[in-house]
Amino acid sequence: MDIPALDPTLVARFKALVEPGRALDDPTAQAAYLAERRNLFHGHTPLVLRPGSVAEVAAIVRLAAETGTAIVPQSGNTGLVGGGVPDASGREILLSLDRLDRIRSVDPKDNTLVAEAGVILDKVHEAADAVGRIFPLTLAAQGSCRIGGNVSTNAGGTNVLAYGNTRQLVLGLEVVLATGEVWNGLRRLHKDNSGYDLKQLFIGGEGTLGIVTAAVLRLFPKPAAREVAFVAVESPAKALALFERLGEAGPLLTGFELMAGLALEFGLKHLAGARRPFAGAHPWYVLIEVSSPSTRIDARGLMEALLAEAIEAGIALDAALAESLAQQQAFWGLRHGMSEVQGHEGGSIKHDISVPIEAIPAFLAEAIPAVEALVPGCRPVPFGHMGDGNLHFNVSQPVGADKAAYLARWEEMNAVVHAIVQTYDGSIAAEHGVGRLKAHLLPGVKAPVELAMMRQVKAAFDPNGILNPGRILERR
Amino acid sequence: MDIPALDPTLVARFKALVEPGRALDDPTAQAAYLAERRNLFHGHTPLVLRPGSVAEVAAIVRLAAETGTAIVPQSGNTGLVGGGVPDASGREILLSLDRLDRIRSVDPKDNTLVAEAGVILDKVHEAADAVGRIFPLTLAAQGSCRIGGNVSTNAGGTNVLAYGNTRQLVLGLEVVLATGEVWNGLRRLHKDNSGYDLKQLFIGGEGTLGIVTAAVLRLFPKPAAREVAFVAVESPAKALALFERLGEAGPLLTGFELMAGLALEFGLKHLAGARRPFAGAHPWYVLIEVSSPSTRIDARGLMEALLAEAIEAGIALDAALAESLAQQQAFWGLRHGMSEVQGHEGGSIKHDISVPIEAIPAFLAEAIPAVEALVPGCRPVPFGHMGDGNLHFNVSQPVGADKAAYLARWEEMNAVVHAIVQTYDGSIAAEHGVGRLKAHLLPGVKAPVELAMMRQVKAAFDPNGILNPGRILERR
Repeated sequence: MDIPALDPTLVARFKALVEPGRALDDPTAQAAYLAERRNLFHGHTPLVLRPGSVAEVAAIVRLAAETGTAIVPQSGNTGLVGGGVPDASGREILLSLDRLDRIRSVDPKDNTLVAEAGVILDKVHEAADAVGRIFPLTLAAQGSCRIGGNVSTNAGGTNVLAYGNTRQLVLGLEVVLATGEVWNGLRRLHKDNSGYDLKQLFIGGEGTLGIVTAAVLRLFPKPAAREVAFVAVESPAKALALFERLGEAGPLLTGFELMAGLALEFGLKHLAGARRPFAGAHPWYVLIEVSSPSTRIDARGLMEALLAEAIEAGIALDAALAESLAQQQAFWGLRHGMSEVQGHEGGSIKHDISVPIEAIPAFLAEAIPAVEALVPGCRPVPFGHMGDGNLHFNVSQPVGADKAAYLARWEEMNAVVHAIVQTYDGSIAAEHGVGRLKAHLLPGVKAPVELAMMRQVKAAFDPNGILNPGRILERR
Repeated sequence: MDIPALDPTLVARFKALVEPGRALDDPTAQAAYLAERRNLFHGHTPLVLRPGSVAEVAAIVRLAAETGTAIVPQSGNTGLVGGGVPDASGREILLSLDRLDRIRSVDPKDNTLVAEAGVILDKVHEAADAVGRIFPLTLAAQGSCRIGGNVSTNAGGTNVLAYGNTRQLVLGLEVVLATGEVWNGLRRLHKDNSGYDLKQLFIGGEGTLGIVTAAVLRLFPKPAAREVAFVAVESPAKALALFERLGEAGPLLTGFELMAGLALEFGLKHLAGARRPFAGAHPWYVLIEVSSPSTRIDARGLMEALLAEAIEAGIALDAALAESLAQQQAFWGLRHGMSEVQGHEGGSIKHDISVPIEAIPAFLAEAIPAVEALVPGCRPVPFGHMGDGNLHFNVSQPVGADKAAYLARWEEMNAVVHAIVQTYDGSIAAEHGVGRLKAHLLPGVKAPVELAMMRQVKAAFDPNGILNPGRILERR
């Protein structure tokens, strides 16, 4: 295919819209913006633009609209589905939001914070902490991912159980539309039924409907204490029973993470300083977190009682309640290291799926033998946010197998797993989004009527298809 | 204006789409469907259709699409903005969802319940209770409002503080689209980023984008205990300070309702059996509810400590902690009676507004004198969900004034109050929606770019304007 390069005059016009030095056309300077975390996509762009204001973003999009130029918005570039990197055509301009990095306001009385798209998630955590609040969104990439991407992918993470996805943490948005107009929807309201809730389209819209430039985020009171326990269970069914029993903690239950036994063994083997929470290896583990809002509430007593009862009832095999903050961090460290450790065990084929919570045991009972039948010797290491019905059903290659040959079966294994997900009315893109990685899969899992609605929305907001084209919805 | 009646042949075709006896053309039989709670709108319709299945709803909408006939969907007909009653033209067909009243499934392990649009909210409460769960949505009309309307208006109520609006309580929807196609989006997933979250448009869409026929609702563990207190405070600023202090209860704080002193006096005068919570009249009151998920958590002790500290710190003037379930109900009864009692005091001009929570004191400090200046002797009785920033800023007529003459100033007073709301970036339609009552106000409070987006959405989903036309967005 012979795609003509973008017209140099046009490139120069885009370049002139930002301050000198903020338009990168040198491959070395561009490299960090083009690298993609899983190394699945290798893109090119004539220009990385780093606007320093919303007005500059708007000017770039206006010119793009006028000239039909494709724009790929990028935030922290930590996405796992290739949504924020340009394609190989060299015709897509990359618009980085990394310089829109101001926290515009922090308001503890109102429990809100207004952050621009380029603010790194951890900076929001720090700003909230400084006024005695928390911003609950917690995920592995929080040291480098940025708010614009969190909003645009409706990021999930380990705190969804108690606080919801990013969608539930956003009260208002500022968005540059495909026309280059700016929509100021930076409301700080908990109730507003004055028309269609337009922000919902941009949350999780992956930059295909507009470019989020700022968000009003919800803050919450800081818990007075946290209790973290590591629990061994015989099976996912027992984990589900444990989850049901922990309903007694109500909204104080802030974490419920499932891990396959082998996943823990990987962690013990590869994570520096990792230690077994208790003696013996078990088939499955659950990490539980309970948070107490007040020192007047005895979360530890509650946790001890619930764990003791779970063991007595034959639901849990063993349990360790962290005795110190360091031990809590060590338990969470085992969980957070799960993605990383798979890298040490060769190729890993990944699935980011969700099913109704009660279907988790049945799903695993089907999916594990299915992938083992497909690739004998492969090693499933499912883990994830069981309390949200969301698992990272990742499968490591057989010991000693050829990595490239194994990874070549990515689509084939995806198809097997996704077919099972479908039977439970699940999602094949639970928290990481669709991007470029899964756009081609949507027609296989969504009804035509739903895809048609999605295309209608896209056509309404971006009729010329200049915003992140081909992401979520394939080009036609 | 001389509007031709709907063609009788066409009416007969619609009639034939439902079972005999389920198409009402007799005014007496229609009366209950045309009455509107505040008696602000008086509509006519050639036909009230009461389909008994989703297929019948779809057939009706298909015929409407084919013939360009306007359809007004109606659920429990308890709306406060005229969204569910036909206009005076006699050309709108009323589609009642009251016969789609099955609870399709209840799943306590999964904490979900699937209800059709015609299920009365209290029936959902009962079904949840029967399996040891709650469905948190709580509002005055719960004995007669229906789920379809709750979803379509994104209903709020008194439990939003802890559980969110209806939007946060819905996991999936089934919708009949403007083409007559059925979208089965009845997912039970807590995480699903596989494309645009289309259900968000129908939630709060007031039937203008599609007709909701069923919803997957979230259930929650039943609290083990509730504590309810009535607290007197000197001012809204003190109420705000109290709210901030109650942050210590974290997610256990399930209610924080503000009431003007005069509102309580109205209640004591007009509500059967109403008793003063403690001696003396005070300028403002707050009703507080704290819920404990477990008998192992001492919510009463927490509440006692927080109230004692609030009094000691000069935040609260007096406080009464309910000593029994009956007293809890009596406290809540005072709050829930607030709308009703105003009817006994003559005309009441109503405002359903929200502002950022911290702006409540400033808003009241401006709005109260403003309406008193407009109508000397008028009696503001603001009350509502202060924890959500949502107040029903209602204003009773001066004692002895002419009711009709007072109510004739509705729009004028609205304008004064809404202008103040605007200065705080608030909403003039916080929880009751827009409907027909406020459609003409939106151009005054929303930026053209936002109204244009709303029209784009409407055009994408209902290009021929057959679904609840003129609601939310005025006809052009």
